[in-house]
Amino acid sequence: MAYKVIVISREFGSGGRTIGKNLAEQLNIKCYDKQIIKQIAKESGFDDKYVEETSESSKSFFEQIFSQDAFYAGPNNQDDIWFIQCQYIHKIAEGPCVIVGRCADYLLNDRDDVLKVFIHSDIESRAKRIVDVYGESDVDAMTRVKTKDKKRISFYEHYTGLNWGDAYNYHLCLDSGKLGIEKCVSIIKQIYEDSNK
Amino acid sequence: MAYKVIVISREFGSGGRTIGKNLAEQLNIKCYDKQIIKQIAKESGFDDKYVEETSESSKSFFEQIFSQDAFYAGPNNQDDIWFIQCQYIHKIAEGPCVIVGRCADYLLNDRDDVLKVFIHSDIESRAKRIVDVYGESDVDAMTRVKTKDKKRISFYEHYTGLNWGDAYNYHLCLDSGKLGIEKCVSIIKQIYEDSNK
Repeated sequence: MAYKVIVISREFGSGGRTIGKNLAEQLNIKCYDKQIIKQIAKESGFDDKYVEETSESSKSFFEQIFSQDAFYAGPNNQDDIWFIQCQYIHKIAEGPCVIVGRCADYLLNDRDDVLKVFIHSDIESRAKRIVDVYGESDVDAMTRVKTKDKKRISFYEHYTGLNWGDAYNYHLCLDSGKLGIEKCVSIIKQIYEDSNK
Repeated sequence: MAYKVIVISREFGSGGRTIGKNLAEQLNIKCYDKQIIKQIAKESGFDDKYVEETSESSKSFFEQIFSQDAFYAGPNNQDDIWFIQCQYIHKIAEGPCVIVGRCADYLLNDRDDVLKVFIHSDIESRAKRIVDVYGESDVDAMTRVKTKDKKRISFYEHYTGLNWGDAYNYHLCLDSGKLGIEKCVSIIKQIYEDSNK
């Protein structure tokens, strides 16, 4: 089976975004990451930043309780954004590309030509990496990682019904902290290229 | 970090044993699989078949209830076998080798020079494979896979306290049904060889 699309799910700070970007560059195909947010913002009318915060991260329990949506039984803003996201993921997956995050592994699960990858790493490496990449903030790095993990896991499990980090959801899971970013890129690249020979 | 030992955890019927064997042959290092059972049998005095059934599979709830160990609060035969297994795994991991199963991923978790791999596959491929490899039996293939899965998961989680199939427990998880046995071997081999350059 020749793969057309590579989807990369990743833990925050694992370097999954960099892996996707480098991989797409080396394969000379498109990488969709931040562009997905921009497109959803354009289609939905919501602000980029709001879409970014809402399209992959669930609100905490208390945020949900005190939100405007708390007493409304129909679809909320997040559900609307999810719907647009679903349509857009299916659209971009028509051509060869790398898609980072946005539950694309789940959304394209029925496609045989999609290689599903999960990038993870130990929390210490991830905390170090987010400081290197995004800089320091008032909140310490470990807390930032844990908070983001919690929101991402909650979102993923809510919309997919799958367990986050379960090897069975992917064809390939790589520990980027142990293997290194470059090695992860080369493993995925090799699989993709060999399938298209 | 140069890897010395490769440990392969695997789902029943995923081809993990074949991957380990082929990998060891290509790397010209030892592969420990059935030999572990023979050694434990020798050291414990138990029969090979009993060790094989006990060293990686938990008894079902009803088997436990009606077993001789049911009313004995101390270590049972399985615990004794586990203890010998732990010592033996640590001993063989002194030299370069591939170790298949036996919770070696957990037992060697503190070793930086151990590459931890998990091989899984969809249940249909596994059911087909066990008929190809082990032949037909009175019990249908899907039931055989499900029964073995249940016992192996129960054993692993009991002795390690970890979740079976959790990507975080491994550096590399591969879907052998999707990627193919040969491709799995070549990916692991490449990582091992590159680390030892």
